[in-house]
Amino acid sequence: MNVRVYVTPKKGILDPQGAAVERSLPNLGFTGVSGVQIGKIIDLTITGDGLTAAAAHEQVDDMCRRLLANPIIEDYTFEISEG
Amino acid sequence: MNVRVYVTPKKGILDPQGAAVERSLPNLGFTGVSGVQIGKIIDLTITGDGLTAAAAHEQVDDMCRRLLANPIIEDYTFEISEG
Repeated sequence: MNVRVYVTPKKGILDPQGAAVERSLPNLGFTGVSGVQIGKIIDLTITGDGLTAAAAHEQVDDMCRRLLANPIIEDYTFEISEG
Repeated sequence: MNVRVYVTPKKGILDPQGAAVERSLPNLGFTGVSGVQIGKIIDLTITGDGLTAAAAHEQVDDMCRRLLANPIIEDYTFEISEG
Protein backbone atom coordinates (compact mmCIF):
# COMPACT_ATOMS: atom_id res chain seq x y z
CA MET A 1 0.00 0.00 0.00
CA ASN A 2 1.19 3.47 -0.84
CA VAL A 3 1.13 5.99 1.97
CA ARG A 4 1.52 9.77 1.82
CA VAL A 5 1.95 11.53 5.16
CA TYR A 6 1.52 15.30 5.48
CA VAL A 7 3.23 16.95 8.45
CA THR A 8 2.55 20.64 9.02
CA PRO A 9 3.48 23.05 11.82
CA LYS A 10 0.64 23.61 14.29
CA LYS A 11 -1.06 26.99 14.09
CA GLY A 12 0.71 29.52 16.29
CA ILE A 13 3.99 27.63 16.36
CA LEU A 14 6.98 29.63 15.12
CA ASP A 15 7.98 28.36 11.67
CA PRO A 16 11.41 29.89 10.96
CA GLN A 17 11.72 28.20 7.56
CA GLY A 18 8.39 29.66 6.44
CA ALA A 19 9.31 33.08 7.82
CA ALA A 20 12.59 33.00 5.88
CA VAL A 21 10.80 32.17 2.63
CA GLU A 22 8.23 34.89 3.27
CA ARG A 23 10.98 37.48 3.80
CA SER A 24 12.80 36.36 0.62
CA LEU A 25 9.85 36.56 -1.77
CA PRO A 26 9.61 40.39 -1.99
CA ASN A 27 13.33 40.51 -2.89
CA LEU A 28 12.52 38.35 -5.91
CA GLY A 29 9.64 40.61 -6.90
CA PHE A 30 6.79 38.53 -5.48
CA THR A 31 4.44 40.71 -3.50
CA GLY A 32 1.18 39.94 -1.73
CA VAL A 33 2.31 36.61 -0.33
CA SER A 34 1.61 35.94 3.35
CA GLY A 35 1.14 33.12 5.80
CA VAL A 36 3.95 30.95 4.45
CA GLN A 37 4.21 27.70 6.38
CA ILE A 38 6.50 24.84 5.50
CA GLY A 39 5.82 21.23 6.32
CA LYS A 40 6.89 17.78 5.15
CA ILE A 41 5.54 15.12 2.83
CA ILE A 42 6.62 11.55 3.52
CA ASP A 43 5.89 8.99 0.80
CA LEU A 44 6.39 5.33 1.61
CA THR A 45 5.26 1.86 0.70
CA ILE A 46 4.10 -0.57 3.33
CA THR A 47 3.73 -4.29 2.71
CA GLY A 48 2.98 -7.33 4.83
CA ASP A 49 1.31 -10.72 4.61
CA GLY A 50 -2.41 -10.19 4.98
CA LEU A 51 -1.98 -6.52 5.89
CA THR A 52 -5.44 -4.98 6.08
CA ALA A 53 -6.21 -1.32 5.47
CA ALA A 54 -7.17 -0.93 9.14
CA ALA A 55 -3.88 -2.46 10.32
CA ALA A 56 -1.90 -0.26 7.91
CA HIS A 57 -3.76 2.80 9.19
CA GLU A 58 -2.89 1.95 12.78
CA GLN A 59 0.74 1.25 11.91
CA VAL A 60 1.18 4.52 9.99
CA ASP A 61 -0.45 6.49 12.80
CA ASP A 62 2.00 4.89 15.25
CA MET A 63 4.92 5.71 12.92
CA CYS A 64 3.80 9.33 12.75
CA ARG A 65 3.60 9.70 16.50
CA ARG A 66 6.90 7.96 17.16
CA LEU A 67 9.15 9.08 14.30
CA LEU A 68 7.71 11.04 11.40
CA ALA A 69 6.10 13.97 13.21
CA ASN A 70 6.64 15.80 16.47
CA PRO A 71 3.08 15.85 17.87
CA ILE A 72 3.97 18.69 20.25
CA ILE A 73 4.55 21.19 17.46
CA GLU A 74 3.25 19.46 14.33
CA ASP A 75 -0.04 18.15 12.99
CA TYR A 76 -0.14 15.17 10.67
CA THR A 77 -2.59 13.56 8.32
CA PHE A 78 -2.09 10.71 5.88
CA GLU A 79 -3.65 8.96 2.92
CA ILE A 80 -3.34 5.25 2.20
CA SER A 81 -3.98 3.92 -1.30
CA GLU A 82 -3.85 0.35 -2.54
CA GLY A 83 -1.14 -0.47 -5.01
CA MET B 1 -6.12 32.61 -2.76
CA ASN B 2 -4.73 29.72 -0.78
CA VAL B 3 -1.88 27.82 -2.35
CA ARG B 4 -0.40 24.47 -1.36
CA VAL B 5 2.86 23.53 -3.08
CA TYR B 6 4.19 19.96 -3.02
CA VAL B 7 7.92 19.54 -3.59
CA THR B 8 9.26 15.98 -3.88
CA PRO B 9 12.67 14.55 -4.77
CA LYS B 10 12.87 13.40 -8.39
CA LYS B 11 12.92 9.64 -8.91
CA GLY B 12 16.45 8.30 -8.79
CA ILE B 13 17.82 11.24 -6.82
CA LEU B 14 19.48 10.28 -3.55
CA ASP B 15 17.22 11.26 -0.65
CA PRO B 16 19.35 10.98 2.51
CA GLN B 17 16.54 12.12 4.81
CA GLY B 18 14.25 9.40 3.46
CA ALA B 19 17.02 6.81 3.69
CA ALA B 20 17.62 7.76 7.34
CA VAL B 21 13.93 7.37 8.19
CA GLU B 22 13.78 4.04 6.37
CA ARG B 23 16.75 2.72 8.35
CA SER B 24 15.24 3.91 11.65
CA LEU B 25 11.83 2.28 11.23
CA PRO B 26 12.90 -1.36 11.83
CA ASN B 27 14.57 -0.28 15.10
CA LEU B 28 11.18 0.94 16.26
CA GLY B 29 9.53 -2.34 15.29
CA PHE B 30 8.06 -1.23 11.95
CA THR B 31 8.81 -3.76 9.25
CA GLY B 32 7.80 -3.95 5.62
CA VAL B 33 8.28 -0.24 4.93
CA SER B 34 10.21 0.70 1.78
CA GLY B 35 10.64 3.52 -0.70
CA VAL B 36 10.63 6.30 1.88
CA GLN B 37 10.97 9.70 0.23
CA ILE B 38 10.69 13.01 2.01
CA GLY B 39 9.54 16.22 0.40
CA LYS B 40 8.13 19.58 1.40
CA ILE B 41 4.71 21.17 1.63
CA ILE B 42 4.57 24.94 1.35
CA ASP B 43 1.28 26.60 2.30
CA LEU B 44 0.82 30.27 1.51
CA THR B 45 -1.76 32.91 0.80
CA ILE B 46 -1.47 35.15 -2.23
CA THR B 47 -3.46 38.33 -2.65
CA GLY B 48 -3.52 41.17 -5.12
CA ASP B 49 -5.92 43.65 -6.68
CA GLY B 50 -7.72 41.90 -9.50
CA LEU B 51 -5.50 38.83 -9.23
CA THR B 52 -6.92 36.17 -11.54
CA ALA B 53 -6.51 32.43 -11.11
CA ALA B 54 -4.36 32.32 -14.25
CA ALA B 55 -2.07 35.10 -12.99
CA ALA B 56 -1.79 33.41 -9.58
CA HIS B 57 -0.91 30.13 -11.31
CA GLU B 58 1.85 31.80 -13.29
CA GLN B 59 3.20 33.61 -10.23
CA VAL B 60 3.29 30.46 -8.09
CA ASP B 61 4.99 28.50 -10.86
CA ASP B 62 7.63 31.22 -11.06
CA MET B 63 8.06 31.18 -7.27
CA CYS B 64 8.56 27.40 -7.35
CA ARG B 65 11.23 27.60 -10.04
CA ARG B 66 13.08 30.50 -8.43
CA LEU B 67 12.83 29.84 -4.70
CA LEU B 68 10.62 27.06 -3.40
CA ALA B 69 11.97 24.07 -5.32
CA ASN B 70 15.26 23.10 -6.90
CA PRO B 71 14.11 21.98 -10.37
CA ILE B 72 17.35 20.07 -10.93
CA ILE B 73 16.64 17.55 -8.21
CA GLU B 74 13.00 18.17 -7.24
CA ASP B 75 9.58 17.98 -8.84
CA TYR B 76 6.80 20.31 -7.78
CA THR B 77 3.06 20.53 -8.15
CA PHE B 78 0.62 22.94 -6.56
CA GLU B 79 -3.05 23.52 -5.91
CA ILE B 80 -4.71 26.93 -5.78
CA SER B 81 -8.04 27.36 -4.04
CA GLU B 82 -10.13 30.48 -3.65
CA GLY B 83 -10.56 31.83 -0.15
